[in-house]
Amino acid sequence: MERPYLLFLGDVGDQLAAKTAHGIADWRPQWCVGQLRLPGCKADTGLADLTLEEAAARGAKTLIVAVANSGGSMPEHWTDTIVRALDLGMDVASGLHVRLGRLPAVAAAAAKGGRKLFDVRYTDQTFNTGKGFKRAGMRCLTVGTDCSVGKKYTALAITKEMEKRGLKVDFRATGQTGIFISERGVAIDAVVSDFISGAAEWLTPENDPDHWDIVEGQGSLFHAAFAGVTLGLLHGAQPDALVLCHEPTRKHMRGLPHAPIPDLKDCFQPYQSMATLTNPECRFVGVSIDTHLLSPSAAERLLKSVEDRFGLPCVDPLATGTGPIVDALEKLCAS
Amino acid sequence: MERPYLLFLGDVGDQLAAKTAHGIADWRPQWCVGQLRLPGCKADTGLADLTLEEAAARGAKTLIVAVANSGGSMPEHWTDTIVRALDLGMDVASGLHVRLGRLPAVAAAAAKGGRKLFDVRYTDQTFNTGKGFKRAGMRCLTVGTDCSVGKKYTALAITKEMEKRGLKVDFRATGQTGIFISERGVAIDAVVSDFISGAAEWLTPENDPDHWDIVEGQGSLFHAAFAGVTLGLLHGAQPDALVLCHEPTRKHMRGLPHAPIPDLKDCFQPYQSMATLTNPECRFVGVSIDTHLLSPSAAERLLKSVEDRFGLPCVDPLATGTGPIVDALEKLCAS
Repeated sequence: MERPYLLFLGDVGDQLAAKTAHGIADWRPQWCVGQLRLPGCKADTGLADLTLEEAAARGAKTLIVAVANSGGSMPEHWTDTIVRALDLGMDVASGLHVRLGRLPAVAAAAAKGGRKLFDVRYTDQTFNTGKGFKRAGMRCLTVGTDCSVGKKYTALAITKEMEKRGLKVDFRATGQTGIFISERGVAIDAVVSDFISGAAEWLTPENDPDHWDIVEGQGSLFHAAFAGVTLGLLHGAQPDALVLCHEPTRKHMRGLPHAPIPDLKDCFQPYQSMATLTNPECRFVGVSIDTHLLSPSAAERLLKSVEDRFGLPCVDPLATGTGPIVDALEKLCAS
Repeated sequence: MERPYLLFLGDVGDQLAAKTAHGIADWRPQWCVGQLRLPGCKADTGLADLTLEEAAARGAKTLIVAVANSGGSMPEHWTDTIVRALDLGMDVASGLHVRLGRLPAVAAAAAKGGRKLFDVRYTDQTFNTGKGFKRAGMRCLTVGTDCSVGKKYTALAITKEMEKRGLKVDFRATGQTGIFISERGVAIDAVVSDFISGAAEWLTPENDPDHWDIVEGQGSLFHAAFAGVTLGLLHGAQPDALVLCHEPTRKHMRGLPHAPIPDLKDCFQPYQSMATLTNPECRFVGVSIDTHLLSPSAAERLLKSVEDRFGLPCVDPLATGTGPIVDALEKLCAS
């Protein structure tokens, strides 16, 4: 995919629905010229608001449909924007379930101008069913109390800290945003369900005994829509270490107003117990809390209290860094 | 799909790999003219062995590729048989992951003769992501210690017994064999993984309070390859009742020689605990054991000992019938 990118946020109804845009803007700002928002858009990455024409003038090469709505569909009224971007000479990339080329107007505009369409949620890779054999190398998976609670940010921040320490490490993207950021990976939730764990095994192959795969988690074992994806990924990744991710202001499970958020204390056992099927040694090494909606003092108190309550390092990956979790991973690898 | 069928078993290496053929032959023998086996085939449905020409002469209208190998691929050397069947005027149906129309020789032969190709594992139906709302109606899901342990047979036998008693009941097929038998359903393991539980919700919609959906289970929560599918189906089906299915002579998890079969006692809690996410009232109502590889006296002793051990009715759905389990379901519905 050619850079720089223009991030298209459509008119999504909240910040979380634009989490692909936030992820790219937060982790790869140097790849972006700005954002494009339609009237009514409730999300904002903080990048410059540009029209398609302004972005083209600043050299934008690819328009990224940078939203992550539940179900991965695309509103019809976004098509015009995509077609105009193609007409202005940009390629278009999307991480939605709907394929760009299946939209007749988009396919026609791309063909007319010789532009490329990228559907990063899909891969031409074929997978085997999972085998469950223990593979050499170390693996850490981020898991969540809910969807969209910082599993990807935590994994990226752990990877960055490990790279800084000169450790052998790879970030393993399992969703569209992670793939845009790391330019590789597999969108596990777009894989045919028979192959979930097989795809996760392919993504985290045998490696040096002191090499870490830091695997971006998906969904939540406690989310009625996505727990199957979460479990297949957990079994395929066969993690040695788990990090529990949480967003403390969430009122209910994402998209399910009737479903309460589980208490942190009730999350450790189900994840660990399910993980033992493919790795009996699997254990939690830390908790990662997204505190950006709390005051600094409330955030500090919360991290401290969770740490005391569960006897595990508790961090906010952006505010405090992931040092104590990486310490625990280093210790685990040496043991 | 036009009947009668000729069941194609290829040269699969064991009886279980032909479980689609066994399912159709056992539950819908009146729809079949016979079976077609290649040299070396280790499976046998007991139906008459016919050549393609003999089957055509007996009026076979559809060749069913009636195997269920792990991963759903098709050996290349089966293509000739499929092409010849098309040339002889038969349609062809398959429940594999690979689509018949993607095999160039098959697509060409079908086009030439104006024959139809059916890929029952795929559906044009689009699904929403799961919502987890409680729906009216009663639901029973069969779950397993492993794959291929009688979940479908148990569900079909329960359905048959309920129909005999004049109860409101539907068998809900979730795999290719069940779809061939009941002529509807969704192959859950072929659904894109984001939509597993949403597809299960679609398959078991709101219904009368005294109506039962008897849902065919898939995979096993204890199988490293397929537990994600199992969990998504469990959450989407939101069962009121579970029946644990088991095959007592199995030495290891299907296809995973290194993975032991879990003890029955260790299976109830994980299933029930995971099920509570979408149905807190979910409970086990029975155990179903496939005893056909045991002597009659050993079978009787086993059923009795499991019944005593767990305080649940324990049946072999074919040998003893499912009466005691249906009694338990009737009681649950009345309570």
